[in-house]
Amino acid sequence: MDNIAGIITSISSGVVSAERLCLSYIKSLTEVLFDVALQRAKELDQYFKEHRTLVGPLHGVPMTLKDQFDVKGYDSTLGYVGRAFKQASGDAVLVALLKQLGAVVIAKTNLPQSIMWCETENPLWGLTVHPENPEFTPGGSTGGESALLSLCGSVVGWGTDIGGSVRIPAHMLGLYGLKPSSGRLPYHGVAVSTEGQEHVPSVVGPLSRNLDSLTIATKTIIDAAPWTLDPKCYPVPWRNDAFLEVQSRPLVIGLLADDGVVKVHPPIARILEEVANKLRNAGHEVLPWDPSDNHRECIETMDEYYTADGGEDIRRDVEAGGEPYIPHVEALVNRGQPISVYAYWQLNRRKLAAQKSYLDKWNAAVSPISGRIVDALLAPVMPHSAVPHRKCRWVGYTKVWNFLDYTALSLPAGAVSKNLDSRTDAIPSYEPRNELDRWNWDWYDADSMDGMAVNVQIVGRKLEEEKVLGISKVIERLIKH
Amino acid sequence: MDNIAGIITSISSGVVSAERLCLSYIKSLTEVLFDVALQRAKELDQYFKEHRTLVGPLHGVPMTLKDQFDVKGYDSTLGYVGRAFKQASGDAVLVALLKQLGAVVIAKTNLPQSIMWCETENPLWGLTVHPENPEFTPGGSTGGESALLSLCGSVVGWGTDIGGSVRIPAHMLGLYGLKPSSGRLPYHGVAVSTEGQEHVPSVVGPLSRNLDSLTIATKTIIDAAPWTLDPKCYPVPWRNDAFLEVQSRPLVIGLLADDGVVKVHPPIARILEEVANKLRNAGHEVLPWDPSDNHRECIETMDEYYTADGGEDIRRDVEAGGEPYIPHVEALVNRGQPISVYAYWQLNRRKLAAQKSYLDKWNAAVSPISGRIVDALLAPVMPHSAVPHRKCRWVGYTKVWNFLDYTALSLPAGAVSKNLDSRTDAIPSYEPRNELDRWNWDWYDADSMDGMAVNVQIVGRKLEEEKVLGISKVIERLIKH
Repeated sequence: MDNIAGIITSISSGVVSAERLCLSYIKSLTEVLFDVALQRAKELDQYFKEHRTLVGPLHGVPMTLKDQFDVKGYDSTLGYVGRAFKQASGDAVLVALLKQLGAVVIAKTNLPQSIMWCETENPLWGLTVHPENPEFTPGGSTGGESALLSLCGSVVGWGTDIGGSVRIPAHMLGLYGLKPSSGRLPYHGVAVSTEGQEHVPSVVGPLSRNLDSLTIATKTIIDAAPWTLDPKCYPVPWRNDAFLEVQSRPLVIGLLADDGVVKVHPPIARILEEVANKLRNAGHEVLPWDPSDNHRECIETMDEYYTADGGEDIRRDVEAGGEPYIPHVEALVNRGQPISVYAYWQLNRRKLAAQKSYLDKWNAAVSPISGRIVDALLAPVMPHSAVPHRKCRWVGYTKVWNFLDYTALSLPAGAVSKNLDSRTDAIPSYEPRNELDRWNWDWYDADSMDGMAVNVQIVGRKLEEEKVLGISKVIERLIKH
Repeated sequence: MDNIAGIITSISSGVVSAERLCLSYIKSLTEVLFDVALQRAKELDQYFKEHRTLVGPLHGVPMTLKDQFDVKGYDSTLGYVGRAFKQASGDAVLVALLKQLGAVVIAKTNLPQSIMWCETENPLWGLTVHPENPEFTPGGSTGGESALLSLCGSVVGWGTDIGGSVRIPAHMLGLYGLKPSSGRLPYHGVAVSTEGQEHVPSVVGPLSRNLDSLTIATKTIIDAAPWTLDPKCYPVPWRNDAFLEVQSRPLVIGLLADDGVVKVHPPIARILEEVANKLRNAGHEVLPWDPSDNHRECIETMDEYYTADGGEDIRRDVEAGGEPYIPHVEALVNRGQPISVYAYWQLNRRKLAAQKSYLDKWNAAVSPISGRIVDALLAPVMPHSAVPHRKCRWVGYTKVWNFLDYTALSLPAGAVSKNLDSRTDAIPSYEPRNELDRWNWDWYDADSMDGMAVNVQIVGRKLEEEKVLGISKVIERLIKH
């Protein structure tokens, strides 16, 4: 009962009922839509009993939502005290589609104050911890989903990602997470901080415990033509040919091993190299990918967007509830003065120039052997696996793809091993490059991190979701066998 | 030699050479790329002579560009004195694609100071006039192209449209003009005023003297996969099924006859009703479309974007050259104070809400007979045909589709007739609704406007270019027969 296809088969064949399945999932939770979920599951069972057919391709599949998605009659708190007890007047487009397709929404889950962080803590709901070690973070901002999914408390969790917020929690719990390009999955009815800032777009993305569920969830929503309901979506149908094509031939993969700012911990480097080797051994090409020429410009430009309003948006939300600031949120809102709209437009021109430069770079990345352009990049998700609370700092490996609005998938690839990845064996004397790098290096501890999941990131260009899902399938097969 | 397909056939069969064709077009012009164009035409002829095949689907087709498109080695003035004598360092993506596909760029054409106007006048190049009456405007801002095309000085003219700037000049000269949704045709390398303001996007669009050339020009660029070169383009290929499907069945057309702000002149009303009747008689459904509930909100929100910087962008450009302000540009830059980035984000939220509301309205516009949702709208382009210089004021019929980012095509449908459209016969005693409406009504003069072209507008939703081109083909057949 751990993936969409299995659930649909079991319900279709009468082996399990939607109600019974729903009950089993609810037991793992501490949240709030149980009665409605069970009622809906009973309706689905009744429908199936009467018609001997499913209401839709997600009939009876239990799902959960980060606490940003509007569900009629429930709060969308975003983790802010001031937003509590304000019920949404309607369903977000994604929620309406999920319900229509038969999914059963059983709960909403935790996220950090301001959302703009890679851990999960707020004064309203508290701190979400890593299920394997309560001293560690499950990542964020979709950390409620990652913790819950890893405990089998849901089949698909829907999050949002503006800098890594789907991919990072997936990485820290060894889950699958997709950050599509903007305009592919519907965002309408999903509240967010710095709402209205769309030049570095926050996007909706699913998390799951297996790749097929991630693919089915994505495909099913796209098949429902979200562009007819959400003005920000593009009429790009599911392109199964692109999904299959990359599974049928040798790939050209760019290997981004180090972003030049924060060096990855030994287990991340080891696992990335293992995956690259498996690709090479299976006949795929692996080219080096050097980010030193443009990642810095991307990230510097990007950071100016987050605080272009001088922190006013987040400050208003925190102060509306009279809640205390989480320290990193306070630092964020006080980072700089607001800029003018004219300056904001110039920032946007810089962004476009950087995006064009990256696209040109990609087009020029041609294999000397096959003559093909790079299909996708293989990269770390973070410079470390799960770490103790409040120890995350550098999200440069994920956020650059939000700035470029590329597709990126977080794929489980291994785990930290205190035997293989001991600090002294891997890199006896490493001299950090800068303060961030030193921070990251100082926290590395193979003993306490032993067994923690390590994902890799598969990156395609804008709106290449099918291609990235297909390539991930190829790579997963190599990892597993 | 008046359309792309005919040109390609003639060159392929050896009836005409690219050089000879190029010369015949250049003779109509006063502009600047003649030597290069002829050189290129000779190369194309040489290539054809050697290989007996064309270099691409636009081999030898003469084209022109509004003076915003970067052509390596030439100025992109935008009509600003301060931008003169500054050669572009490379080709815009569209220009590079046109060259690669075989088109011959012969000239760049005039546009108004600031671009943000529906006539064509600037202190650098002067005033562009209507070829049929020099006291009248050819429209704008792509007015150099409309004047030139109507004199057969080009086959396809490429313009830009952020409020009607392709559709209005097409309307005033009885040409065809397409405003696609943003992200369909490549904008990279096209300078524009208020650059970086992307929430009401300026888009690239073609103008031509016939619908097939408009379709081929659009299709050919899309077939060249502009999304691989322009980071703002979406990977939406040319969908010929959508183009053909709407030509194969009865359509449901919404008729927007009056926007409730400025009533259209008698010939516009007459021709719109004639087209609607032809649709009805041919078995299509025509439903009334009431814009009174949301066009005002769209236009008010939209106007705030144009001057969100307090006019700084345009003021900088005008002052850089020390040129005088055209009166309406001066009024624009002094219209209001700059707003904050936070307020700009809230404006964007209002925009999105209005876009969602419009999409919901469209989805609810179901024919009571066929049960189909409206396929497209039939609407005026402007409340009047060509008018004397500096008499345009109201572009509400075109700009609302920029705000919604919908597809809209300007389609020739008739001409003013002093016999059919005399003021007293049509509406003996009309009492204008407001100051704008009075201004428009007072200028109506069937005698001086006699024979001036009248277009209609065909409007589809976001990224429905194929559908709109296909429906336009159906409507054009009805108009012509």
